[in-house]
Parts: sequence; structure tokens; C-alpha cells
Amino acid sequence: MATACPAPLKALAEFRDRLAALPGPCTRSARAARERQGQLTKPPGSLGRLEELAAWLAAWQGRHPPRLERIRIAVFAGNHGVVRRGVSAYPAAVTEQMVRNFEAGGAAINQLARAFGAELRVYALELHSPTEDFVDAPAMSPEACLAALNAGLAAVEEGLDLLCVGEMGIGNTTAAAAVAAALLGGPPQRFAGPGTGLDPEGVRRKAMVIEAALDRHRHALDDPLEVLRRLGGRELAAMAGAVLGARLVRVPVLLDGFVCAAAALVLQRLCGDALAHAQAGHRSAEPAHRLILEELRLQPLLDLGMRLGEASGAATAIGILKAAVACHNGMATFEDAGVSRSHGEAGFGED
Amino acid sequence: MATACPAPLKALAEFRDRLAALPGPCTRSARAARERQGQLTKPPGSLGRLEELAAWLAAWQGRHPPRLERIRIAVFAGNHGVVRRGVSAYPAAVTEQMVRNFEAGGAAINQLARAFGAELRVYALELHSPTEDFVDAPAMSPEACLAALNAGLAAVEEGLDLLCVGEMGIGNTTAAAAVAAALLGGPPQRFAGPGTGLDPEGVRRKAMVIEAALDRHRHALDDPLEVLRRLGGRELAAMAGAVLGARLVRVPVLLDGFVCAAAALVLQRLCGDALAHAQAGHRSAEPAHRLILEELRLQPLLDLGMRLGEASGAATAIGILKAAVACHNGMATFEDAGVSRSHGEAGFGED
Repeated sequence: MATACPAPLKALAEFRDRLAALPGPCTRSARAARERQGQLTKPPGSLGRLEELAAWLAAWQGRHPPRLERIRIAVFAGNHGVVRRGVSAYPAAVTEQMVRNFEAGGAAINQLARAFGAELRVYALELHSPTEDFVDAPAMSPEACLAALNAGLAAVEEGLDLLCVGEMGIGNTTAAAAVAAALLGGPPQRFAGPGTGLDPEGVRRKAMVIEAALDRHRHALDDPLEVLRRLGGRELAAMAGAVLGARLVRVPVLLDGFVCAAAALVLQRLCGDALAHAQAGHRSAEPAHRLILEELRLQPLLDLGMRLGEASGAATAIGILKAAVACHNGMATFEDAGVSRSHGEAGFGED
Repeated sequence: MATACPAPLKALAEFRDRLAALPGPCTRSARAARERQGQLTKPPGSLGRLEELAAWLAAWQGRHPPRLERIRIAVFAGNHGVVRRGVSAYPAAVTEQMVRNFEAGGAAINQLARAFGAELRVYALELHSPTEDFVDAPAMSPEACLAALNAGLAAVEEGLDLLCVGEMGIGNTTAAAAVAAALLGGPPQRFAGPGTGLDPEGVRRKAMVIEAALDRHRHALDDPLEVLRRLGGRELAAMAGAVLGARLVRVPVLLDGFVCAAAALVLQRLCGDALAHAQAGHRSAEPAHRLILEELRLQPLLDLGMRLGEASGAATAIGILKAAVACHNGMATFEDAGVSRSHGEAGFGED
């Protein structure tokens, strides 16, 4: 089978068109998975979410049995004009330094990719042209937002078994909090958290910055795509593009943490079904991640107090998917193994 | 280094003696781990529990950096006289059928062991001599309990990097619930759950059986070791032995689900510090598992609605430990990678 990326968008408005015609799951593969689950040597349902995950992978891969051989981790990096307002514990230069660390193999995500046999791709998005400070102006021009969405679409292709999506960008929990506040409503303090390690004074400053930004863009926040363009950043737009792109070519997705969830929320607000092919890899320690996950009705696979980004939470959850596929594909059936079913079911063997 | 198992117990009372002289963690390895964590290219604490887990492995392996190459999964199987009272959804013959399935490689735990590179050992404990029905008599004689404890001690040896402990035994959630009820107090209904799939009527019957057993043995339940002998089963005693044995030769342990937790609770009641070398691999769907974990102050690594036993929850959590060790051992330091530290710390690079 030829591998292909989703076609790039020619204009920002095309983003909506793509969301209006999303492919669904392969119901035949999902049914085959559920049928097999009922025959495996275990009490029905006793592998819990591992059973659901195997069926979900089958449904979105359009393949039974499901497979986890070609796993890609896509990390998108961007810089943010708003960092000049003192909203991060780290200087903006760290974004590019960490991209070099990814390229040299020294970051957490490099180790996780190797541990789980995944391919890591890092996309540095115009790091020397930070977005505008969104307190003063839209973070991105329509052209910049379009380019970032297309970078995300181009990061996925047919035939991948799984895509993990994450980011790196000093200041981007401020952008994500602004996007979430605009889409979910409520006071900015609910969405401003410590990020990489702000002190309480810094968190208060961050909330005030978000409040000012919401005020500045108030007239345009009914449109989720405008929220993304005005308050987001290149890596948020690219993550939204990648999650959409994965859906278009039927690749299941593991979302990472808070910033990734904010990007996914934009998609969900544009199309309620847009994340059916996605699972939340983990719940981050960033407090507002919980609010977005509840809104997305995603139950995170892990809850380990991680808050690094880099797709590290999603990558750690690959182990759970590997466990699910190993059990689903490798277990014997009751018939193969000569194991009795429960008293209440049509069985064989003694009793 | 010669590998050695802990010495077998010569009498049941020796079990207490061993618990009275437990080795502690290697504080030097733990300190080395924490120091390294502070130098890795990530905000302090941002890998959450992955950081704690790497330090915990180092402390109990007595080795820095920690290692996860020799992982053993020990599954203990036993049969229970109490099954004649209709407390399981499956016939007792399934215990031995599943042991054959383990030996043939067809069970969930076989797939998980292979997926995570662990060695699986299955210990079939006198399957043709079920324990006594504990409503009428102690489940085990002192000799039978001693033999099972020694089977557990013999399942672990110096030089293992991790031990996962689990079980198989039709009827054993009834034994575990009786043990937990005796040690924690409160009405038997709090501890009786559906196990492999009992209907509500069956769960009520199970609670009544437990109540009758508690009444029968009431005079002897102040001693946790007597609780284990009278209400437990061979696989519960063996798991207690294995967890103790791992401590004696400094091997960190991942506990599995409800039945395993009940066996661990016996140790903790005999010695409050007995489980410092153990983590809970997961929280089972069996409702009373939560009660035991709270008592043990163990925060489970996974919460995926699994309720299979066989060490399957512990084995699934191996992926998390692999992630922790990969990050800890493989990441670059700030200095190596030329990445700036936060504004608030002594740093280098631009800002």
C-alpha cells in the first residue's frame, strides 16, 4: 500500500470542510475484536480497559487483529511572544535548546521512544519568529496558522499504527490556558497553573495576562478556529492538524498533556466527534488538564503526576497499548486451551 | 555474585523472626538517584512518579543507576475447599486448566511477560489437595501453611531486578475477602465482590460464607499469621512468602490485585514497614481492593478496571517502570546538553 499524507489545506477555511467529512471507525474490525475477546481464556471483561483499547485500535486501524509496529511520536516546537510578560519559569531560548537536545537524543522523549520502539519526529516551527504577544495582537496571521496546521497534517501518513502527539514551547501553557478559557468559559484563574514551575506570584501574573488577552480578542472568540489563531501558537495549531490528519488517514492517536488537550479541544468544538480516534495518554499535574479532559470525556490511561510535555505522557502510555495488543493477539481461546467456561455459560470440560 | 534464595523457614514461628529483622533500602543509591534527577534536562519533578520510581528501584536494588533486565513474574496457584459453597462463577477444575494454559503459553500473563521481557514462573501448589473449607476448619494445617510460605521464599533470589507477584485459584477472592475482613474489621459485605463474575445473589452468598468463617475462627483472629493459615490459602501464603523473600534479598516488588493485596496485608499487620520495597501495580475492579490499598498507603500505578489476577495488573505496570528507568538512565544533564535552567536557579546559557 502506498503511504500518503492528508492533502495540505489551501486556505484556513478548508479546515472546517475537512472536519465536516471525517471517516468513521471500521465497524467490521471492531466487531471481530469483540468476538475474539469473548473467546479468550479469561472471565468476560476481566482485562478491563485493555479489552476496550484492543478493539479501539482495531476499529481505527481498520484491521483485525490490531498491530503496534509502526508507532510515531510527533513533537511540535514553537515560541511565544507572550513570554516577554514573565509567564514562564524558563527563558525562551530553552525551546530551541531542547530541540537540539531532542536531535542529540538526550531528552526524556528520546528514551521513551527507544524503550517502546517508536519513531520520534521533531518539528521546529519557525522558532526564530515567535508568535505575536497575544495581549496586543492575534498570535498568528491566517497564513502562519495555516502553515502550522499543514505542518501537523504532513506529520502523519497512512499505514502508521499509532500517533503520539506532543509539544515543546516555553510559554505555551499560557497559550493553552488562554485557549481553554476562551472555549470553556469561567475565570482565567481556573486555567492558569504553574507550568514548568512558576511560583504563586507568577501564576497570578499569568492569569492576569490571560484575562487581558481574552478581553483584547473578546469580539472574535465565538469561532474556535479564531481562538486557536489568536490565542494559540504554532505548536498548538500543528497538534490540531496532526490529530485531524491522523483521523483522515485512520491512524489512532494518543494525546499528551495539557497543551495538547487544549489543541484537541479546538477540534472537538468544531466537530463533536472529531476525537473519536483519540485516547488521553495521561492526566498531567497541570491542574486545568482535568477540566479539559472532563469536557472531552476522555479518561486518561495514566495519572502519574507528570508535567513535562514532549509527548512524554502519551509515550509512557504506549506500554499499556502494547499490553492490550499482546493479550488480544496472543492469548489462547477456551476451545484451544481446553479451559471450562463459567457455570452460567454454555461450556465444556468438567462440572 | 552467587545467586541465593532466602533460607527456608523451619517452623511457622520463624516467619515472625524474619519480619523482625528486615533490611532497609540502600540510602546511598537513593541519594545518587535523587542527585541525578536534579541534573536531568527537565523542570524539577516534571516526570512525577517516574522520578520516584527510579529512585525507589535504585534504593531497593542497592544499585545506582537502577536496572530492569532480570524481571521475574511469579504466579502461585492453589485450590480452595470453600468453592463447594458456590462462591465462584467458575468450577474448581479451572485452576488446573489455567495452569496448563500458562505452561502452554496461552494465558494473558504469558503475552504480558513476553511483551515486557520478563521471565514467568508458575507454581502449582498441591492443586489436588484443596485447602479445607474454612467455614468448618482452618484452611491449612501449620505444616501446609509453612510449605506454602517456603514455596514463596524459594521463588525469589538475589540479583533479580524486579519481582511481580500474582495468583490463580478458583475461589480465592472469597479467601482474600475473609482475610481482609478479619484484619480490617467491618461487615463482610464490604469485602465480598463479584470476583470472576458472580451475580448479586452469588455475592450475597459469598458474604454469608465469610461471615460464618469469621464466626467459626473468631477466637484466633488477633494473630495475622493465624488469619492467613485459617482463612487464606496456599497461594496467599506463598505470595506473602515471596514478598518477604524479596525484601530479604533486596528485590523490589510489584503487587498485583485484590488477592495479592490481602496476602501483603498480612505482612504489613505483622510488621508495619514490611512493604516498603513494594508498589501496587494496579487497582483492580474488585471493589474491596481499594480498601486494602488505602490501608497499605499504596497508590496504584494503573487503574484500568482489570480483575483477572495472574499478576496481569502488575505485569502491565512493568511498562511504567521501564519508562522510569529509561528516562533516569538515558537522559542528558543540563550541562551535557547546554540547556538553560530556570530563571530562579543558578544556571548558564542565555536568559
